[in-house]
Amino acid sequence: MANRQEVDFSGLSCPIPITDYPRVLLAHGGGGKLSQDLIRKMFLPEFSNAMLEPLHDGAVFPVDAGRLAFSTDSYVINPIFFPGGDIGKLAVNGTVNDLAMCGAKPLYLSVGLIIEEGLPMEDLWRVVRSMQLAAKEAGVAIVTGDTKVVEKGKGDKLFITTSGVGVIAPGVVIGPTAASVGDKIILSGFIAEHGIAIMSVREGLEFEARLESDSAPLNELVNVMLQASMSIHVLRDPTRGGVASALNEIAQASKVGITISEDRIPLSEGVRGACEILGLDPLYVANEGKLLAFVPPADAEAVLQAMRSHPYGRDAVIVGEVVANHPGTVVMKSTIGGSRVVDMLSGEQLPRIC
Amino acid sequence: MANRQEVDFSGLSCPIPITDYPRVLLAHGGGGKLSQDLIRKMFLPEFSNAMLEPLHDGAVFPVDAGRLAFSTDSYVINPIFFPGGDIGKLAVNGTVNDLAMCGAKPLYLSVGLIIEEGLPMEDLWRVVRSMQLAAKEAGVAIVTGDTKVVEKGKGDKLFITTSGVGVIAPGVVIGPTAASVGDKIILSGFIAEHGIAIMSVREGLEFEARLESDSAPLNELVNVMLQASMSIHVLRDPTRGGVASALNEIAQASKVGITISEDRIPLSEGVRGACEILGLDPLYVANEGKLLAFVPPADAEAVLQAMRSHPYGRDAVIVGEVVANHPGTVVMKSTIGGSRVVDMLSGEQLPRIC
Repeated sequence: MANRQEVDFSGLSCPIPITDYPRVLLAHGGGGKLSQDLIRKMFLPEFSNAMLEPLHDGAVFPVDAGRLAFSTDSYVINPIFFPGGDIGKLAVNGTVNDLAMCGAKPLYLSVGLIIEEGLPMEDLWRVVRSMQLAAKEAGVAIVTGDTKVVEKGKGDKLFITTSGVGVIAPGVVIGPTAASVGDKIILSGFIAEHGIAIMSVREGLEFEARLESDSAPLNELVNVMLQASMSIHVLRDPTRGGVASALNEIAQASKVGITISEDRIPLSEGVRGACEILGLDPLYVANEGKLLAFVPPADAEAVLQAMRSHPYGRDAVIVGEVVANHPGTVVMKSTIGGSRVVDMLSGEQLPRIC
Repeated sequence: MANRQEVDFSGLSCPIPITDYPRVLLAHGGGGKLSQDLIRKMFLPEFSNAMLEPLHDGAVFPVDAGRLAFSTDSYVINPIFFPGGDIGKLAVNGTVNDLAMCGAKPLYLSVGLIIEEGLPMEDLWRVVRSMQLAAKEAGVAIVTGDTKVVEKGKGDKLFITTSGVGVIAPGVVIGPTAASVGDKIILSGFIAEHGIAIMSVREGLEFEARLESDSAPLNELVNVMLQASMSIHVLRDPTRGGVASALNEIAQASKVGITISEDRIPLSEGVRGACEILGLDPLYVANEGKLLAFVPPADAEAVLQAMRSHPYGRDAVIVGEVVANHPGTVVMKSTIGGSRVVDMLSGEQLPRIC
């Protein structure tokens, strides 16, 4: 895919000498010399920026009067490296996207690392480097962080919690309660790619087509959408629980009905086949680089065209609309004619998918 | 101690029926119905506030023009319940304190929970309730969050990452590089209480005096200090690595020497005895409700008196000063006469102390 970053390690070596420290030790999270080494040799040079540099208890930045968005997500994905990305890229893009879904321009990120003792030092470095590349693509700075190490067997390689702060432009009012009858529902592209990529790796499945996570920062896409219309009502990235859960949450929060058409939903042949083999409904499978937008009908075409001009929205389509009937419920018209209720996911479909 | 909160469960029962769900399941973090239940029945009513209510991807709040502080910390403490607190209280107070150490008034917190499958539901609820009580005492709102559940054996009961945003008043310039020769160094009270309380529980030690964590929010204490002097140079809460590590970091960041007097450092008999039994140097043991302040000599007495007027600073003393000699090094004059270099902690003294 266009713009899909790959971490480049050519000519680079881990800044902590792996002959001395091949694996992360408990002391790397202990607050003493080894912690300082990790911060000064690995994190500071990689995330380098003026706000991180003082290594204060927090970062300080100036703001203009207005509205800020503030968001957090913890990432526990297994495996930590997968086709199309890794836990670091996912953690940066995920929080960037949560802010973008508030209509905010993401500015600053914090990173909390919980490392299992024994993680190869080079794996940590690859993740850190990937976070910085993702931050760079999204145009955000990682300004503060924290590192903890837990004993072997008390964690699972690496958990990352990112939080972020962004600024909302005057006039933008986007939220899950704002869906209105008549709104067109736009989906930015092919669904279920992230979840299927992860499950394929975990199950050891090989497919003809390489299935990759769609992890991507959506803030620039949202920016071009807002330039096309300031009247966008709802934005949501359908991550855990997939498109079905996201639509149900919005239908309930806005107290409206939602109808979608099965044949409009972009689904690649590769993902469709993998879903059949894995026994998964793609509507419930996680995405990490897609968004749903609820737009008043008058502006829908302009927003759609704006999305298609951007690499992360080039496959955008209108998949449904908001209706007055069946408030709180999502109904899908199937390809063969009938219609069925698309319920909230009950139980755990895909553990540790993000 | 005055103001030390205790979680009160009288007349209350866990809002998730523990007959149905005695333990946290993977599905409670899966993004489906059980996740929604946990959020709507437990988190929303407890953390209740207008910004959390919409359950958006992030919280939105207004700001005035100025400077904000932004901080994060991950908590992996073992055990999660201990004398004087629990992981939830610690996580809220810790981030409140990180913001306060930037000279900021803490406003909003985010919470990322990583739960090990099988955690008793009632334990989760006790922690959530404790977080809300701590937030209330500190005067902050928990406005956004995320919950993940990992398989049994892939985590350890509960890890919490809190991030926070606070506002810095005009004229306040506090940072670890700002220590100046002549500054008096004030310590807000008795040291090593948190670390020793945790180690005593872990080692199964019983002492005559009940040893409790000092976990406390320090933002109000900082507020009264700033009312006494706007010229405070550095604030630091000596958590992991203790007073010794905090002073070393400041000496290095500010490129100054630091001298402290051993006989000035407040140390209770109980903690002193426990340190001897456990073989720990109290200067390196974590505190969770204490601060170090570097204050120009002209303002030191006023700041000290202001601190003593507050419950969390009533035992404050001047423990040392900033000198031009030995830049980057901390020297302690011992009670019996001589002096020794107090080095940075090397290696891991106390794993998972916070």
